[in-house]
Amino acid sequence: MSSAPPLGRRRLLAASATAGLTTSPAGADTLANVPAREPGAPLSARSERSRFVELGRVPEAAPGIRPVDPVDAINSKTPFDRLVGSITPTDLHYERSHAGVPDLDPAKHRLLVHGLAARSLVLTMDDIRAMPSVSRVAFLECTGNGWENWKAADPTLTVQNTHGLVSTHEWTGVPLRFVIDLVGGVPSATWMLAEGADGAAVARSIPLTEEIMAEGILAYAQNGEPLRPAHGFPLRLFLPGLEGNLSIKWLRRLKFGDQPFMTRWETARYTQLQADGRARQFQLRQEVNSVITAPSGMMRVRPGPVRISGLAWSGHGRIVQVEVSTDGGASWQAARLTAPALPKAQVRFEMDWVWAGAPTGIVSRATDEMRNVQPDRAAFIARTGTNALFHYSAQQTWRISAEGDVRNALS
Amino acid sequence: MSSAPPLGRRRLLAASATAGLTTSPAGADTLANVPAREPGAPLSARSERSRFVELGRVPEAAPGIRPVDPVDAINSKTPFDRLVGSITPTDLHYERSHAGVPDLDPAKHRLLVHGLAARSLVLTMDDIRAMPSVSRVAFLECTGNGWENWKAADPTLTVQNTHGLVSTHEWTGVPLRFVIDLVGGVPSATWMLAEGADGAAVARSIPLTEEIMAEGILAYAQNGEPLRPAHGFPLRLFLPGLEGNLSIKWLRRLKFGDQPFMTRWETARYTQLQADGRARQFQLRQEVNSVITAPSGMMRVRPGPVRISGLAWSGHGRIVQVEVSTDGGASWQAARLTAPALPKAQVRFEMDWVWAGAPTGIVSRATDEMRNVQPDRAAFIARTGTNALFHYSAQQTWRISAEGDVRNALS
Repeated sequence: MSSAPPLGRRRLLAASATAGLTTSPAGADTLANVPAREPGAPLSARSERSRFVELGRVPEAAPGIRPVDPVDAINSKTPFDRLVGSITPTDLHYERSHAGVPDLDPAKHRLLVHGLAARSLVLTMDDIRAMPSVSRVAFLECTGNGWENWKAADPTLTVQNTHGLVSTHEWTGVPLRFVIDLVGGVPSATWMLAEGADGAAVARSIPLTEEIMAEGILAYAQNGEPLRPAHGFPLRLFLPGLEGNLSIKWLRRLKFGDQPFMTRWETARYTQLQADGRARQFQLRQEVNSVITAPSGMMRVRPGPVRISGLAWSGHGRIVQVEVSTDGGASWQAARLTAPALPKAQVRFEMDWVWAGAPTGIVSRATDEMRNVQPDRAAFIARTGTNALFHYSAQQTWRISAEGDVRNALS
Repeated sequence: MSSAPPLGRRRLLAASATAGLTTSPAGADTLANVPAREPGAPLSARSERSRFVELGRVPEAAPGIRPVDPVDAINSKTPFDRLVGSITPTDLHYERSHAGVPDLDPAKHRLLVHGLAARSLVLTMDDIRAMPSVSRVAFLECTGNGWENWKAADPTLTVQNTHGLVSTHEWTGVPLRFVIDLVGGVPSATWMLAEGADGAAVARSIPLTEEIMAEGILAYAQNGEPLRPAHGFPLRLFLPGLEGNLSIKWLRRLKFGDQPFMTRWETARYTQLQADGRARQFQLRQEVNSVITAPSGMMRVRPGPVRISGLAWSGHGRIVQVEVSTDGGASWQAARLTAPALPKAQVRFEMDWVWAGAPTGIVSRATDEMRNVQPDRAAFIARTGTNALFHYSAQQTWRISAEGDVRNALS
């Protein structure tokens, strides 16, 4: 049911014995909380959440602007401090747009496919839904995920703030390859422009690599249902493992060419300022990454058993190992993956720990099937500098004080 | 990305050419539907569905009662006619309860674990959430799924009516095995009673087989978030592959014993009346099954290319093959699985077909990794008779008339 190491029951039994489990025989105390055997709520068209469950994304301000100013707010982040498992609830998938969320009528929506191809096509959503489909569980990550910790660590940040711009869903749609065949193939094309129908007309140039040709999807559904407007309804591109802004939402146009189209999104916005002041273009892949989601920023722990839980993912493929350090990176132990790791998908890891009450730092590092190991912050900054805004994937340290307060830290 | 056979592009290209694709150069017609480049809706705490997407479960009447009488309504069915992929949207997972949905406060909820065990325990939800967890994508199916077609086929039924009592989610919780270890093991126990906190106090006896000990989960989350009340909040049992009523919702008690507890649910309710008039108890496993979800009951098709899409699943393990017949079962072709098949999970299959316009029947049959093949209705009835209400898993035929009307049929 899971990867090695095994659950470590013996150690956990010992831990549980000190964890304040309310061990008791079946007596009056046991029965005090039995609810009345009364009829409950009737059938419904949709299962809503319990009134005892509070879940929402935190709309996020632009870099440097706190508290959130609605005018400058640019994205909503997934609340990983309150989620479990590996799949993200559909309505809590992170949200990032450049001109808000358009309200598109699928009956009127069209996809234009043209350029260096044998023929041009204008496709309706009915055309697209009638084509063969594939489904795949994979992560989507904003290239800005983690930018908060490039230069300094705001100790008030939660894991939702630091890592809430990545989510994992089952995506369903038409293989990109199928649409390329439909226009007669694109043998002389090496790049593809994808353009959205949003107010900002976000458009990106995508290199037609073997990997992208094989894995790209024109997605119209997430977690079994039509895309929601914030995620590109009725159609988006989905490119597993690559920075989220390439997976163009509200997709209205694919154009094939033999060079990058140099849209403003790749000349002005999504370039990466290097340590030497030069800008790097087309750094597309999301690197191996992980974060402990509990305990995490602004939580409090008590001495005794602590279950450490987090998520790991990589744009290179499957996660093969996650290690956790409870002494600030000095020593490491293998964590347990709680489900089979899927390629380019988030997977949850867990490790049981007994906190003795001394100040320390907890941190995770992931390794993917290409043997990429997530670097610590010092190594990451040595390589990248601190001018950049995107593709931050260094290890995340949470500092724990003697009082048990968990806080965001650089190491 | 998918199992064999491959997409069959050549055949589909031919099909697409006749499918009314709006092939055109980029001209005035292309641009007519381009929406204005205006700012869209602002950030949100949750991504809601598009106003153009209408999705809900149909509350279902008790057997034989149509249209729905709210007094007799007993379950809400998943709208497979409008879903894609393999994961079911969380709020559309089917719903079945015997006394409505209780409104439980997780802070007050307790799980009593007792009986033939070294010690008894009363666990809080905090206790349970602090234990090691596993996550698994698997189906849950009401044993009554498909009962509509035991004796006669109502031609007005949709696939939501006939097969809407099965759904697939990622379930997260504590391995049953861990809780058993926590009470010191249950070496002399062979059965376990699981009891819910609902008004009907649903309770079932569960044999402690190797499989159940290895795979049983005390689940507190579905698709990454806390269970919703209709699905057992804050805690349910989850037993992959077995009839849904064993996966006790609102779980408040586990009791170990050396024989079945013979609750009224297994003496009066969930027994299976055989052809010879005797009742069979403890028929627990959900058999290999499949259904074409599109085109399906009450839909209409036009002559030309038709994409056949459906779902297959088995309580024995993985689906290894799905075949589709477009001539009422006379000949069969392998369908393509659109994602890797997971053990005891629904997987979507597809097949492309060109309907020439003559009346026919379309039907699917699945094979699982134990080499169980879904029987046709005649073989199924020959074996089981028509007295039973549960575990209907015969092949589903949709009849297509000369006009293209798709209707539920027995074969």
